[in-house]
Amino acid sequence: MKVFVVGANGQIGKQIVSLLSKSDQHEVCAMVRSEEQASKYKDLGVEARVANLEGTVDRISEAMIGSDAVVFSAGSGGATGSDKTLLVDLDGAAKTIEAAEQAGVNRFIMVSAIQAHNRENWNESIKPYYVAKHYADKILVGSSLNYTIVRPGGLVNEPGRGKVTISENLERGYIPREDVANVIVAALGEEHTYRRSFDLTSGETSITEALKSF
Amino acid sequence: MKVFVVGANGQIGKQIVSLLSKSDQHEVCAMVRSEEQASKYKDLGVEARVANLEGTVDRISEAMIGSDAVVFSAGSGGATGSDKTLLVDLDGAAKTIEAAEQAGVNRFIMVSAIQAHNRENWNESIKPYYVAKHYADKILVGSSLNYTIVRPGGLVNEPGRGKVTISENLERGYIPREDVANVIVAALGEEHTYRRSFDLTSGETSITEALKSF
Repeated sequence: MKVFVVGANGQIGKQIVSLLSKSDQHEVCAMVRSEEQASKYKDLGVEARVANLEGTVDRISEAMIGSDAVVFSAGSGGATGSDKTLLVDLDGAAKTIEAAEQAGVNRFIMVSAIQAHNRENWNESIKPYYVAKHYADKILVGSSLNYTIVRPGGLVNEPGRGKVTISENLERGYIPREDVANVIVAALGEEHTYRRSFDLTSGETSITEALKSF
Repeated sequence: MKVFVVGANGQIGKQIVSLLSKSDQHEVCAMVRSEEQASKYKDLGVEARVANLEGTVDRISEAMIGSDAVVFSAGSGGATGSDKTLLVDLDGAAKTIEAAEQAGVNRFIMVSAIQAHNRENWNESIKPYYVAKHYADKILVGSSLNYTIVRPGGLVNEPGRGKVTISENLERGYIPREDVANVIVAALGEEHTYRRSFDLTSGETSITEALKSF
């Protein structure tokens, strides 16, 4: 599968690109915002295309041509305000979904946030972010795409442990970004995850097993 | 028709409540955020119920019971940041839609913004606001409700002229808030507007005629 990674310069995105570029099952195409970022990936032998989530659907769609799957791991991040949450995390995600439909790229994995589907459980301190993720996820569920929505708990930068808990509802928890990236790559071809959503934290089950049995 | 007005303390909302309270075809119930605001309306002989768009769907739904229609004219306004745009203009609108479905209130009129359906035409300076309105409108279109989405041009505080232009697409324009309120009240029972959306500006056609012929 050739996988188009949106947010390829982000903390999870970089790890996904790295895993895919080493994989013998998949190829990768990184979507980045600048020629400079593209050059860095090209120097590493990774295909990269320049497009912007604040640009047009047509441009994003064009960049996707030839890919078989999209991973959306972009996020405006904590350093910018809610303006960017609306423009990137919500509208940017919705535009990527429209672009995938337009380009005929049918497989789509969304990086969301734990309990984004349950308003009652939104973290009060980042509630506006949860609003954006909630509706982006809903738009994906309502699309024609073969989606998987991965809702990780609090992201930490420890090395991956390869052991996780996957369930439609988990109360709370943490997970290393490296394990999120591993789960996403493993989920790409795992039919049990097609058109489904799940919460994800560190746990005691191997990734392969957890993805098959939730 | 008994009409539940969300945002009844807003600039358009107040005019809608006033028109409905004088109408011999309709009754009104104003949704307000505080007991103090409710008392003010009650002193004027207007029914008012306290609920909050940042509260639960259940509470909003409960406040609607007995109404036949909802008008959503709430907005976080220019004085607050995009946090409130996400929490009120998007999530608050979506919760009101869910609440109406839950309460079995089938008729729903949304006050949106000119060209909210066309990303290409969003006013650059208030783009995050347009993102929120765009997706709130989409959620309404995807709901089971009998909706009308009214997308007025730039709002001004001049007295209403009673003459408007209504079309599925208008490039730009202005309109007095009083005329927006008049259009909404006239649209409540106008079948030609059921499950439809339109742009609205000042123009040369009477409101009744414009609502029947777009």
